[in-house]
Amino acid sequence: MNTAEYIIKRLEELGVNEFFGVPGDYNFNLLYAIENNPNTRWIGCTNELNAGYASDGYARIRGYGALITTFGVGELSAINAIAGAAAENVPIIHIVGMPSTKEIENKSVIHHNFQEPDYQNCMNAYKPITSSAAILTRDNAKLEIDKALKTLVREKKPVYIAIPSDIAMMEIADRTPAYEWLSDKNILEEVSSLIIEEINKSQKPVIIGDILIKRFEAEIEYKEFVEKSGIPVSNFLMGTNLIDMNSEKYLGGYYGKYRNPIAQKYIEETDCLIAVGTIYSDLNSFGQNLPFNINDHIAIYGNHTFVKGKKYDNVKMSELLEKLTELIETKNIEIDKPNLGLKKQETENSELTSSYIYPRIQEFIKENDIVFVETGTVPYGIAQMYFPQNVNIQLQSLWGSIGWATPAVLGASLAKPQTRVILISGEGAHQMTCMEIGTMLKYGIKPIIIVINNNGYSTERLLCNNAEDNFNDIIQMNYAKFARVFEGDVWATKVNTSEDFDKSLKVTQIMNKMCYIEVCTETLDAPTLIKEIAKDIKNQINNTEVPRTNINKALDDIFLTTTNSGFEYETIVHRAFNENLSEESEEE
Amino acid sequence: MNTAEYIIKRLEELGVNEFFGVPGDYNFNLLYAIENNPNTRWIGCTNELNAGYASDGYARIRGYGALITTFGVGELSAINAIAGAAAENVPIIHIVGMPSTKEIENKSVIHHNFQEPDYQNCMNAYKPITSSAAILTRDNAKLEIDKALKTLVREKKPVYIAIPSDIAMMEIADRTPAYEWLSDKNILEEVSSLIIEEINKSQKPVIIGDILIKRFEAEIEYKEFVEKSGIPVSNFLMGTNLIDMNSEKYLGGYYGKYRNPIAQKYIEETDCLIAVGTIYSDLNSFGQNLPFNINDHIAIYGNHTFVKGKKYDNVKMSELLEKLTELIETKNIEIDKPNLGLKKQETENSELTSSYIYPRIQEFIKENDIVFVETGTVPYGIAQMYFPQNVNIQLQSLWGSIGWATPAVLGASLAKPQTRVILISGEGAHQMTCMEIGTMLKYGIKPIIIVINNNGYSTERLLCNNAEDNFNDIIQMNYAKFARVFEGDVWATKVNTSEDFDKSLKVTQIMNKMCYIEVCTETLDAPTLIKEIAKDIKNQINNTEVPRTNINKALDDIFLTTTNSGFEYETIVHRAFNENLSEESEEE
Repeated sequence: MNTAEYIIKRLEELGVNEFFGVPGDYNFNLLYAIENNPNTRWIGCTNELNAGYASDGYARIRGYGALITTFGVGELSAINAIAGAAAENVPIIHIVGMPSTKEIENKSVIHHNFQEPDYQNCMNAYKPITSSAAILTRDNAKLEIDKALKTLVREKKPVYIAIPSDIAMMEIADRTPAYEWLSDKNILEEVSSLIIEEINKSQKPVIIGDILIKRFEAEIEYKEFVEKSGIPVSNFLMGTNLIDMNSEKYLGGYYGKYRNPIAQKYIEETDCLIAVGTIYSDLNSFGQNLPFNINDHIAIYGNHTFVKGKKYDNVKMSELLEKLTELIETKNIEIDKPNLGLKKQETENSELTSSYIYPRIQEFIKENDIVFVETGTVPYGIAQMYFPQNVNIQLQSLWGSIGWATPAVLGASLAKPQTRVILISGEGAHQMTCMEIGTMLKYGIKPIIIVINNNGYSTERLLCNNAEDNFNDIIQMNYAKFARVFEGDVWATKVNTSEDFDKSLKVTQIMNKMCYIEVCTETLDAPTLIKEIAKDIKNQINNTEVPRTNINKALDDIFLTTTNSGFEYETIVHRAFNENLSEESEEE
Repeated sequence: MNTAEYIIKRLEELGVNEFFGVPGDYNFNLLYAIENNPNTRWIGCTNELNAGYASDGYARIRGYGALITTFGVGELSAINAIAGAAAENVPIIHIVGMPSTKEIENKSVIHHNFQEPDYQNCMNAYKPITSSAAILTRDNAKLEIDKALKTLVREKKPVYIAIPSDIAMMEIADRTPAYEWLSDKNILEEVSSLIIEEINKSQKPVIIGDILIKRFEAEIEYKEFVEKSGIPVSNFLMGTNLIDMNSEKYLGGYYGKYRNPIAQKYIEETDCLIAVGTIYSDLNSFGQNLPFNINDHIAIYGNHTFVKGKKYDNVKMSELLEKLTELIETKNIEIDKPNLGLKKQETENSELTSSYIYPRIQEFIKENDIVFVETGTVPYGIAQMYFPQNVNIQLQSLWGSIGWATPAVLGASLAKPQTRVILISGEGAHQMTCMEIGTMLKYGIKPIIIVINNNGYSTERLLCNNAEDNFNDIIQMNYAKFARVFEGDVWATKVNTSEDFDKSLKVTQIMNKMCYIEVCTETLDAPTLIKEIAKDIKNQINNTEVPRTNINKALDDIFLTTTNSGFEYETIVHRAFNENLSEESEEE
């Protein structure tokens, strides 16, 4: 078994059957290993960033994802997808096919390199955004692969491995190391007792759950804990539908000051906040970086837990939740039930607006659907929906890279065939990566694509000084026609009225093929929730104090006097500071 | 004048009137500065990588290019374009709009960041591939901008500047520093005398010119030097047509052992090689990393020169060439004239092949055209063409990032309006970035796009074990229909026969709009030159010795015994080496 076959086999054991990427002359051996393994297959995308997003979508559904690119040009094109996976704990392995060891040692100037060849600097670009990054050598190959996969499993964050073409063909031992890890038993005992103690002391405990519960494969344990505890429960945006919305103790989602005062009240007035797998960010936790000081609450993460500000390492989320379920005595806390879901608007056949579109989408989504929600205005149409159980909602609210959702749907559809996958995207984001519609058709997958065309970058329109600023305009195109440009079977349509939109959603149910619907609204149409949030952000931006220059002018004078044929920034700064420039000396 | 206005104004003075990118809420102030300057405008692309390529194409024609993205998601999406510019000395400034200083200082978790927010790591990813990278602060803003622009002008390599939104609005002094630099007079004197001495001693001097002559704005000086010197002259691939092909002393291009034995003989038998602005790489210099040892030849670069292995800094290419022209006595070296250009094949109307297509394209290209040649098989169809004078050929033979050429044509067309710009691309590369056809139509530019569809990644087919390996297949699409998906005026067609191809080229001459031609060939059709090169590369790959594992197994054993809840790679390696594993102990 060679190195390429080894890494593909180990990934197959982790549940990875599809590998996304773009071929290149430095990664052939990896591609052959995929082709020759009866349980794996290659999914060629139109470019590497899209392949990265597809492997992200795959990992979100299947558990792990794999991206294969070529050296330099390929790997760097995908780095933003891997950074997003790092931000949001999506475990992807990025495998790069590199020139051979001999070329590296000789520092050969060959294609995809620099005039002064550097075989390290692409890996160096990856280091800040991966939890493990290595170039394989004769001596470290198996060890680095095992290390990377162990890190992948434990941290649920991307890892990077570059394999020189000769190393890919080198024979190595086919022995599976244990990638799984378990909690430190003593720490697990200690932390679970502490948490139970905190809960028992509390009068008003509340649980807030979020997306990392899914990423660290603790959904079942979380549900059981919530159910047995009887403690009121809410969620941040990315954690939507982790708990059955009909559960007795479900407070509805948390939207900060913007919506659902019931959840807001419970969370802001609690004396014991149990945060499970939470990601804080302006868009996911609605402005709350931490609802409570870290010193005051319980925060359970994938492999560590905070209790009253103290960090306990080597505690696995699923094991801790299981232990807590075992130990907890059921509370019976009465809650005020929130009104869940969007109200359906009955209108005459008329121009489409968000207030019509989103309730209809809510009605359309069925149990077990996977729904990918693109960043932009769409998440705020989805945010308040009622979902049947087991609807799997996927958003990228922290990293927020527009364009992500379209290729992610390619990945998700391959990760879970026979499941209906729905994409809801604005057209500006969709345009960034829409070529992957072709890849979907090539591989015969059949998602439902809803592209909401409101004529430009709407979130940006809401945030900038003037909604008509033409930098927020985008290319106009015929989306339905676009979907039909590729070889493959698609039903594509463009709708302008509520009646046609309703019809199009019905049609999808009888089509056994990809359905692609362009939904046209007015330019400034958007869910009211994002309009309110954008207004606040805009006020905040406008109230930002603009700093005054300090030593710029003086430094500038020195700078202007330096010679033309070379200068040293550090020297200049050093001189400037040594001359002890005072702010008073500054008049422009 | 605020910081945003300052940087835009300084770039305008360097000849940058168009700024490429994608808007984002952290870069609005930069966009306003562009909109408010009467001489600059914003060109919104469909995604950041494409915008990066477009600014590269712009810089290749205009001298400098500028890319504007937003923090995190935007900047990382474009990094491959900037790396390519670094590899090939294309001066682009990448300006990133960042969150405000307050957010940075507070380490706020806001969108486009990580769970443990890090405002440095995207810049850190850029550091290995730029010649200057900085985040602006109150104190360094003007200084860092001036430093970056000075570096841009001197090094002709990309620079990176991230501007927090509040710093973008800070007032700074509008004073233009001198960005231009001049050679050190004494070194210039010394090195020019030395070179003249070397040339005078020589019996068989020869000049080889390449693309860096263009990048360092020394074309006129180079032509004058070549002409006055009377020395035989050749070029590497990217340096095609730097010298009028009808010049008396033109040897034709250098293709190593593959073509043109006349140039090969002169270069390989010279006793004085004068290399001007050369980039060595497998694809540009046809396998020659250095035709001669650096100690034996003269190598003139943008801001330094090697004579007999000694490096002289602070010597500007254009000034040195001017000086050499002044000092040199005209030689009169007789040369064997090579046969230039492709032979036109007269055939019956038949299926299209490379041997038909490329001579027709040769005939089609006229004086002053700008021709962008995508990486892949196309450069080897172009390589041996005869071009009229002032045809500007652009290739990316060192970095070789497929997809580059399509957006680069957007940039080039805007950089030099009223000039005919022609793109020749394979369909696999084109598919990666073809959405920029929409941007071209949005901005009303009218290039001629020739997409050669040979059904997959052909270079890869030539290099891998089996041409039919399905990982080299790509999505089939109707390209002509694709071009008509966008709002805008385009004439698009698909041709399958030589007669139709000829007709389509004629039609472009009467169309005052973008012309888009899909040219269909058989799957394995490619210029014979690339077939020969690929065969050699393939042999080389197959003859690469596959290394044997050394300490893998032993390390593996140690690794397997480590605890599950944490491990330290370095410790393991350290132990393994300390236990002094011998190769003999290894049996798999």
